[in-house]
Amino acid sequence: VKLRKSGRSEEEVLRELEEMWNSRIPYERVFSSMCTKPHPIAVKAFLLFIESNLGDFGIFPSVKELEDKVVSISAELLGIKKFCGYMTSGGTEANIQALRALRNVKRGKNFIAPKSRHFSIDKASDILGVEMKIAPLNEEYQVDVSALEEMIDENTFGIVALAGSTELGQIDPLEEISKMASECDIPVHVDAAFGAFVIPFIDELDVNFSLPSISSISGDPHKMGMSVIPSGILLFSEEKYMDAIKVRTPYLTTKHQYSLPGTRPGASAAATYAVFEHLGKEGYRKIVERCMRNTKLIIELMEELGFEPVIEPKMNIVTFEMEDIDRIREELKKRRWLVSKSLNPLGMRLVIMPHVEEENLKLFVEDLKRII
Amino acid sequence: VKLRKSGRSEEEVLRELEEMWNSRIPYERVFSSMCTKPHPIAVKAFLLFIESNLGDFGIFPSVKELEDKVVSISAELLGIKKFCGYMTSGGTEANIQALRALRNVKRGKNFIAPKSRHFSIDKASDILGVEMKIAPLNEEYQVDVSALEEMIDENTFGIVALAGSTELGQIDPLEEISKMASECDIPVHVDAAFGAFVIPFIDELDVNFSLPSISSISGDPHKMGMSVIPSGILLFSEEKYMDAIKVRTPYLTTKHQYSLPGTRPGASAAATYAVFEHLGKEGYRKIVERCMRNTKLIIELMEELGFEPVIEPKMNIVTFEMEDIDRIREELKKRRWLVSKSLNPLGMRLVIMPHVEEENLKLFVEDLKRII
Repeated sequence: VKLRKSGRSEEEVLRELEEMWNSRIPYERVFSSMCTKPHPIAVKAFLLFIESNLGDFGIFPSVKELEDKVVSISAELLGIKKFCGYMTSGGTEANIQALRALRNVKRGKNFIAPKSRHFSIDKASDILGVEMKIAPLNEEYQVDVSALEEMIDENTFGIVALAGSTELGQIDPLEEISKMASECDIPVHVDAAFGAFVIPFIDELDVNFSLPSISSISGDPHKMGMSVIPSGILLFSEEKYMDAIKVRTPYLTTKHQYSLPGTRPGASAAATYAVFEHLGKEGYRKIVERCMRNTKLIIELMEELGFEPVIEPKMNIVTFEMEDIDRIREELKKRRWLVSKSLNPLGMRLVIMPHVEEENLKLFVEDLKRII
Repeated sequence: VKLRKSGRSEEEVLRELEEMWNSRIPYERVFSSMCTKPHPIAVKAFLLFIESNLGDFGIFPSVKELEDKVVSISAELLGIKKFCGYMTSGGTEANIQALRALRNVKRGKNFIAPKSRHFSIDKASDILGVEMKIAPLNEEYQVDVSALEEMIDENTFGIVALAGSTELGQIDPLEEISKMASECDIPVHVDAAFGAFVIPFIDELDVNFSLPSISSISGDPHKMGMSVIPSGILLFSEEKYMDAIKVRTPYLTTKHQYSLPGTRPGASAAATYAVFEHLGKEGYRKIVERCMRNTKLIIELMEELGFEPVIEPKMNIVTFEMEDIDRIREELKKRRWLVSKSLNPLGMRLVIMPHVEEENLKLFVEDLKRII
């Protein structure tokens, strides 16, 4: 493939792209994704700000204002009063940056993360050139806090906790971790990439994010926040952590920069603000309630087939132990259903996003029945 | 600011955002930005693929195909036959990842970058936890290759070279660097974030990117490529460098991931492919020729005011020595013109992007005359 001498017409290029786009398995049949169709208002707002660069916001002061609003709204939603933060490209950047901040502040050489961590934590360990120690889980697939405590040494600069875990949507015992971490004087980064825009809308989940020693929290509007990719949030409890990742920015209209990318879309801030303002708490609550109803439905349907969930789901992620998941997954794909595989334990993992319909869950289980 | 209980209507939210957007200084009056308005076809293609996630492309096989095409087209454009690569979020990610790959392959502790490097190289040094040594420049503001050679020690894992530099658009002597680096067995990363989509369209610039020891090249379609933010390219000369930044991806529809972010917009691949295909070499050449004509025009106009460019511009970036740049810049901003400040040497830096019109350059110089 090479850059052609003369260009093709707009119609021809867009027709080719439309054909490519239409060849996908539509989100309605995808039960493996933590992303979903963005809300239409998010798309409209993104389009309006599409030429803006949040990395050079002196040109577009309003996108900085929108970023600040998105950060404040997210902090308030999680019940955090004292914070600073910025919009990331998503959970991976947030995890890298949070651990970078902790490493830079404490000048340590290792951090500890649960066995259930997202793979971006492994990526962060390689990028930052620091050791990652892996803490075991208890029977509920939460991090084992006493084992975690024993792993702390004089070179440990931070701990990662999850709300919730990628495979099971499990939430680590934050209060217990916070108490232990405060005694050991080790800051804790909470990876809530998925949970941040689910947990606040489920009354039974009484999670306190505003605890001593919690130094940072990540959350992704481009997952359950219904915003456009890339849209993430990173909140710090103290300025010193933000300062530890600050970089001077000559030639730009700004003085400093905190983000991992330089140039980055202001459109993401506009999109996220728009969907926050348009849905409000009530709007999000309705979406999450529907996802939870559908999660309960799929459990009922799977139980009829003899499968039990690994844990009682706290959010809209549910995993069923299944030994021949590889074969089943392939067979399902042939029937145009996408499901995910969990490794610990081996099983079928389903993320019941807003794009998942009751009707499709029933059709899916019928197809699954034929396969097993 | 907090998440409101009940949401606001779509009309109300979009009206607020439109007002915010309209308050900016429009790109027509911005001579400080390396980004520009994306081409309309890029926006249309972005919109078509807006829900796609290139970090989980098993769901959207066509976006991986588009990414591969964009990478191939970019490599061919730069005259590189053997390559692998991926689409980044922009030059900063590309610089971090290129240096990470070199560090991981050679297991070294320091790299050397020219004094004229972009600040993202400093960011990469902090993130990767490796030392950055700064090589001096010659009289033409290119890296001094003999000084660079002397700085190499047994812990050096890589060299950064520029095509072109952020402040002046200067191009380091790649042939000379390649020869020296080959003798010393040190790989070279070429930061061509700005230059990659300018240099190939200027006949007088006979730059050879396909040289021994050049291990990686970055280029940003979201700068002179006229694509949507975030759109970057990273090309490696050998698989071993890609392998060195590979991360396993459980639960996804993919097996491995090379990018810094996890979730990332497939829409960027569609947008970039669309503008590549629609403009072709002739389309880009016309755009670059117009930018170069306008660059020559601003030099003529500035020379009439007594200012000389620091170097004869190789691309559409031109910098004039100016001691009271801070005051002048502020006065210009009051008149709604945005210009950039260079530090080495102190001066006024102008990036003559496709959004810059001849007429506005004349109006700008009239305003500047009044100020000085």
